[in-house]
Formats: sequence, C-alpha cells, structure tokens
Amino acid sequence: MRTILIIGAGRSASSLIQYLLNKSVEEGLHLIIGDLSLEFAQKKTNNHPNATAISLDIFDERSRKEAIQKADIVISMLPAHLHIEVARDCVFYKKNMVTASYISDAMQELDVLVKENKLVFMNEVGLDPGIDHMSAMKIIHEIKSKGGKMLLFESFCGGLVAPESDTNLWNYKFTWAPRNVVLAGQGGAAKFLQEGTYKYIPYCNLFRRTEFLEVEGYGKFEAYSNRDSLKYLDVYGLDDVLTLYRGTIRRVGFSKAWNMFVQLGMTDDSYIMEDSENMSYRQFVNSFLPYHPTDSVEIKMRLILKIDQDDSMWDKLLELDLFNPNKKVGLKNATPAQILEKILTDSWTLQPNDKDMIVMYHKFGYELNGKKQQIDSKMVCIGEDQTYTAMAKTVGLPVAMATLLILNGKIKTPGVQLPIREEVYLPILKELEEYGVVFKEQIVPYLGYNA
Amino acid sequence: MRTILIIGAGRSASSLIQYLLNKSVEEGLHLIIGDLSLEFAQKKTNNHPNATAISLDIFDERSRKEAIQKADIVISMLPAHLHIEVARDCVFYKKNMVTASYISDAMQELDVLVKENKLVFMNEVGLDPGIDHMSAMKIIHEIKSKGGKMLLFESFCGGLVAPESDTNLWNYKFTWAPRNVVLAGQGGAAKFLQEGTYKYIPYCNLFRRTEFLEVEGYGKFEAYSNRDSLKYLDVYGLDDVLTLYRGTIRRVGFSKAWNMFVQLGMTDDSYIMEDSENMSYRQFVNSFLPYHPTDSVEIKMRLILKIDQDDSMWDKLLELDLFNPNKKVGLKNATPAQILEKILTDSWTLQPNDKDMIVMYHKFGYELNGKKQQIDSKMVCIGEDQTYTAMAKTVGLPVAMATLLILNGKIKTPGVQLPIREEVYLPILKELEEYGVVFKEQIVPYLGYNA
Repeated sequence: MRTILIIGAGRSASSLIQYLLNKSVEEGLHLIIGDLSLEFAQKKTNNHPNATAISLDIFDERSRKEAIQKADIVISMLPAHLHIEVARDCVFYKKNMVTASYISDAMQELDVLVKENKLVFMNEVGLDPGIDHMSAMKIIHEIKSKGGKMLLFESFCGGLVAPESDTNLWNYKFTWAPRNVVLAGQGGAAKFLQEGTYKYIPYCNLFRRTEFLEVEGYGKFEAYSNRDSLKYLDVYGLDDVLTLYRGTIRRVGFSKAWNMFVQLGMTDDSYIMEDSENMSYRQFVNSFLPYHPTDSVEIKMRLILKIDQDDSMWDKLLELDLFNPNKKVGLKNATPAQILEKILTDSWTLQPNDKDMIVMYHKFGYELNGKKQQIDSKMVCIGEDQTYTAMAKTVGLPVAMATLLILNGKIKTPGVQLPIREEVYLPILKELEEYGVVFKEQIVPYLGYNA
Repeated sequence: MRTILIIGAGRSASSLIQYLLNKSVEEGLHLIIGDLSLEFAQKKTNNHPNATAISLDIFDERSRKEAIQKADIVISMLPAHLHIEVARDCVFYKKNMVTASYISDAMQELDVLVKENKLVFMNEVGLDPGIDHMSAMKIIHEIKSKGGKMLLFESFCGGLVAPESDTNLWNYKFTWAPRNVVLAGQGGAAKFLQEGTYKYIPYCNLFRRTEFLEVEGYGKFEAYSNRDSLKYLDVYGLDDVLTLYRGTIRRVGFSKAWNMFVQLGMTDDSYIMEDSENMSYRQFVNSFLPYHPTDSVEIKMRLILKIDQDDSMWDKLLELDLFNPNKKVGLKNATPAQILEKILTDSWTLQPNDKDMIVMYHKFGYELNGKKQQIDSKMVCIGEDQTYTAMAKTVGLPVAMATLLILNGKIKTPGVQLPIREEVYLPILKELEEYGVVFKEQIVPYLGYNA
C-alpha cells in the first residue's frame, strides 16, 4: 500500500479524492485526508475502507510533520501561500509533492534542494494553471517537432455558468472564489505582445478592450486581458513569437457592464468605508456619486455612467437590487470590494441544481514549410452537480493523475516543476478525455492578430 | 549673533534666504547655508557678510552633527523623507527646527522627546501645507470665538502659470516638481464629506468630478479632489462639520483633458516599458492602443477616447506633439509616468520671462445666532521672476518668519507642531501681507454644499 496525504478537503478536492479512491484497490493506495475540520475530511472519505480522515492544523508543526512523515506523496490543496511549510517538510522527509497553484518565489527557491534529493514537486497542475499549460505545450511541441516556427499564441480560459443554468442578465454566476472575481485585473497594467509590439492596458480600460471568441455549440464569448502574459515567452519557449496574449473568458456584455463598477470605484479593496455595517445597498451606491439635495441616486448614476434608462446595462444593475434602501450591507469595516462581493453573492450564487462550465480556447499561429497556418484548440467542460463541478473536475483530476504518475515512476524529472514536459502532459491529457475533458482542434487560416 | 542653519539650498529656499538676510543686521543673524553642492549654497549667500556657505552631505553623520551643534535653530528644506535624521540630532543637541513638510509618522513619534526638551519643531509652515492651515485656522477660530458652529469647510489650492505667461491650450505650466503633477491623485481613492455623507472617488474618475471656482479679476478655475480630506476633521477641530473637502486648482478644462492620460494608462509609475529609450513619442502613444495593421494611431486614439477631430481636447494633444514619430523618448528603463513627464516638460517648462501664480480659495460655512452664513476667503500671489517665484515666496517666507518668531521667543508652545495656533498664524499672516500674500474675505449666502 502507498500512502497519499491530501491536505485540505475543500470544494476543489472532491473529484481529486473520488478519482484516487476509485483507483485505490487496483493501485494499492491509502488516502489520508487532513483538514482543519475533521467532519469535512470524514465526509470526503465517503466511508471508503482505503481512506482515513484526520484533523490537521498545518500551523501545528508537530502534527504536520507527523502526517507528512507517514506519507509516500503529499498533495497540498491549501491556499497558495500556505504550501511552503508543507514543501519544506517534504524536502526534509524526502517526499514528493503536488499542488495546483502557481509556483511562488519561495517554492522556486527550493528547486536546488528538491533536485539534490531527486524529488518531484509538481505545481500548476490543476486548471489555469494546469490544463492550459498541458494542452498548449502539447501543440507547441508538435508544431516545433515538425520544424514549425511559432508566430502567435493566444490563450483564454473562463469559469462560467452552464448554458442550462444561465438565468441572469449578466450570464454569470460565481463558480469559484467570488473575491478573486471582484479583484480581477487589479494591481498593475495588463501587458502583452501583438504583432511584435508591446501593449499595455490600465485597469480602468481593461474591461473595455475585450476580444470576441466563438465556440461551436456554445455561442459567442468575450475575453479581457490577464495581467502579465509576457512571462509565458520564457515558460513556453516562445521567444520569437510576435503575438502573445492571455485572457479571461466571459459571456458577451459582462465586461462592459463590470466596467461600471470599476469606474465608480466599487472594486477598490484598499480602504474601509465609514459605517459599512449599517449602510444600505442604496447608500453604498450613493457613496460613489456626488452629493445633491434632491437628485436621485438613479439619475446621478446614469449621468456619471452616461447611460440611458433603457440601456441593457441599466437592467443589469436593477437585477442586482443595487438601489434597495432597505437591504443592509451588514459587514463591519468592509472595503468597497467586500461590499460589492456581498451584493453580487445575493444574485450570483449557484442554485442547488445549477451546473458550472469551464471554457478554454487556444490559438496557435505558426509558419511551416514557408506556409503560415493556425490551429485553434477549444475545450468545454460542464459540471455534473454541485459537488463534481466542472471546476472541481478540471482542477482535481489532473492533480490526482499527476500524483499517481509520480508514485508509479512515470513522471520522474526531479525539481520544482510545472506540467510542460511530455512525460506529464501526454498521459494526463489522454486520460482526461475519458472524463469528458476533450480539446477539439481545427486548422484555420492564419490571419495574424486581428482586432 | 544667532546662528540659523539652513539645510538644502534648492529653488524653494530663495525667498526664505533673502528674507532672513534682509533681517540679519537688525536681528543679529548669521546664516549657514548647507547643500550637497557648495556652489549652490554659495550662490544663495549672495555674498552677504552674514551668510556662510558650507558643503553638507546629510548622510555624513559627523559633518551633519557638527553643523547642527553650532546652530541656534535649524531649517530643513530637504525632501520630506530626509528630515528625520536632522530632527533626531536636533533633539539630541536641543535645537529648535522648522520644515515646510507634512509631519511624518517618524517625526510625530519625536513629540514626547521634543516636549521634554522644551523644543519647538514647527512643520507644515510653507504652502499647502502651511499658508492654507494658517488662513483657515484664523477664520475658524474667529467663527468659533463668536460662538459660531462650523458646518462646512472647503479648501482649494493650486500652483499655476500667471495669466500674462499663460500661452498654451492647457493653461498650465510646471511651476513645481513635474513628477508630483503626473502622479497626482494616485495611491488610493479620494475621501471627503458632503452634507454629512462620506464620498469616495476612484482615480479613474477623479479628474471628471471637478468643481468650479470663480476668483474676481482672475476668472474661472476648477478643482479636483485631494486624496484624504478626512484627516482635517481632527487637525482643524471640525468634528461636527457636514462638508469637508480639499482640492487642487487648475484652469477650466485641464482635468477633463488630463483624464485622457489617466484613461490610457500613461500616468502609471508601477512598471517599466520595453525599450523606452528608443521609443518615439508616437510609439509611446501606440503602446496604449490596440494593434491594427492599417488604422492610424490618431484614429485609434480618438475612438478609445470617444472624441472627434474637432474636439478642443484633440488640439491639446496635438499641441504636445504626442504623435511625432521622430522625437525619441531617450530615457532608459522608464515608466509610463516618467515618459509622460518628459513629453510634458517639452511643452510646459516655464520660459525665462514666465511668471507663476498661486491661487488659494477657502469656503467656511457656519451657523451663528441661528443664522447660516458663509465666508469665502481668496488669495492670489504672482511670482516676480524665475527666482522669486510665487511658489518660492509662499513656501519660503512663512518658514523664515516662523524661524525668527521661534528664535525671538514669540512662538513657544513646545512639541512637534503645525501652524494652527494664534501665536503662529496671527503674526505670520499679518507680515505676509507686506509681501503681497493677502487674503480677501467676503460674506456670501450659505447654500451648503452645492454641486
């Protein structure tokens, strides 16, 4: 029996644990599921004989080390900034490790030690980051192995609500951490490359500079730019590429409407609003509008946003009940972003029977034998229910698969890694297809970057 | 003879030194003018027998302490973050001290020690902060001493170009650190109080939410909100006030045009642009616009800003030569803000015969004997030339006057102070009138905050 320690039994661990339990008999696996809440962990074992739940506080050094010592491999599903203590213990006790998070500077610094100990620390192997790396690298390597030269790489991903559960004017519900949605795009200009020119978009213009995408059977989407696309020049080995762009997918019209919140200052997380607890939704809105003794909040809002009352954006605001004078915020010492998140959560929470959807879209432009071509690769994944969501599947399954491949010696390149090598992406992408995560590729005319 | 050590002989020290030299014989003063550049310091002595120039590197502890030890009082005209070392030495050697800068947290922490040693550390006694504090507190105290209750305080200040030198479409030239103009308003939402309601404006809306001001003989101005007006509730003792607002004065139309730079992202100081050195002005502009194989920079710019070619804002952009493909930025590793500053400096630098202008405008609303009233207080100061600018006069003269008042025992309240007490503002405001810094007060109908 091999022991897998899974730290963190939250929402994103459902499909991961289910996969490993299903394989546990044939592969001889024992799962130890550790969470701060023993109840949470127990629920996730599903009473399977090959699983044990433990209460685990990762800030309690003794019990953390004890749990890691007993494992053959450790999966950390903790929030990204909490991986590092686990990682240091894994180095000390010579255990392999898997996470779905971006490699932090602290994690990267362990690379030398991890290699010296011939360990594999596989990171960014969930979804965005994860499946995006793997599906992109597979095609980039194929193009390069044929002698092709990469000209363009654009990559888009979004967590959305499935068409059958898409019931509001925003065509959006929270399928993942709402806070990240509210803060998206903040903290610096978006940077990318278009036809050899560096381009920069400030936050206040980010949601007005979208691109359209069409996915057969699912209709039209839009995407706004992610913050830093340029680091992928190096990670993906695209040094000569003319266009490099990464974006976040939403349904058409979302970004234009979201920009209203940005312009008003409602997404700001840098200061606390006076008496936020007793503020009504209407007072919240009015805080961002000029004082007037008689003009209504509505007319001031329309003037500042320069929209008419029959504009579809106005209906989107009404749908959120934003002008309600009786609904109270009820949050002490809250920032505008926290209050907006609260208001949106009222409207955008998935209902019990709602399903989520992941959409991914890559464009690869290249030159081969003197001819310019383009491959578009698209993937749509719909969740099964509120436990086995598309998000839980796409994040958890590749993490689980990578864990088993490391245990079985199939992934063996030592170091602090991300899934950009054949030994990782080929078996995982292939197996993901069995779970409905299928990329459809088509060759299209190469047009270069077209705005 | 009393010895005054002046550290920092930059532009803002001209009027300060001239004032003290003029008083040096009757008051028995000897000035030691210390600057990193001995030449700079020598020039400022004007060969006056009562002045000595020294070369002074404030990071050289020994020579800094030596100079401070010899002085009876120390004026620091260094950049704000450099005062603290001087201040610590002044405590140690028991010397009084004067600065024109905002009280930093580090400076405030010295308060107990300064009081224990019965010293006066007078700060914020130049212009904004300085004359604004004094002229405001004088009227606030007058209203309160009559039994009036403050309802409203609005205060505006701006450093502008004098009408006779106002020769460009922006009605603006740099009369002070250009970098501060480019970065103005960044780093957090503007916060203020209007008729009892807290209001917040994000940076991306700051230059669209202006107020108009009329100054007799000088025409119409506008003001955008300063970052944090709320701290003046406490400093000025205005706890019950309904409206509290501080703003920066510009000529009408400046802010709307400046907002174009904000929207495009050109004021961002948080990242370095690729190959900024060899970039043309036109390429700089194009970096903030979407790529297109044939559309011109001009049409992309007009579309994003939603302006026509006959819009007066467009002429303002043309005047800056922003679309010139031959002018190179020539700055290595520069941020957008640094490049914009360079471009604006080409157009907005004061010419040899240009004069500058300071405009200040306070509104005081109050209730006295059951009647609501308002006092408007306005001051305009025009510079003499490029040495004795309005900025140098309004910053330097009150610093010099405060220094002499402390030396002569007229200002004696110990501690880390700002000029909000009668013993400070009464003599200084009176003497400033002799130098043309005159506030004109008028009683006007109280309308409350009117948008």
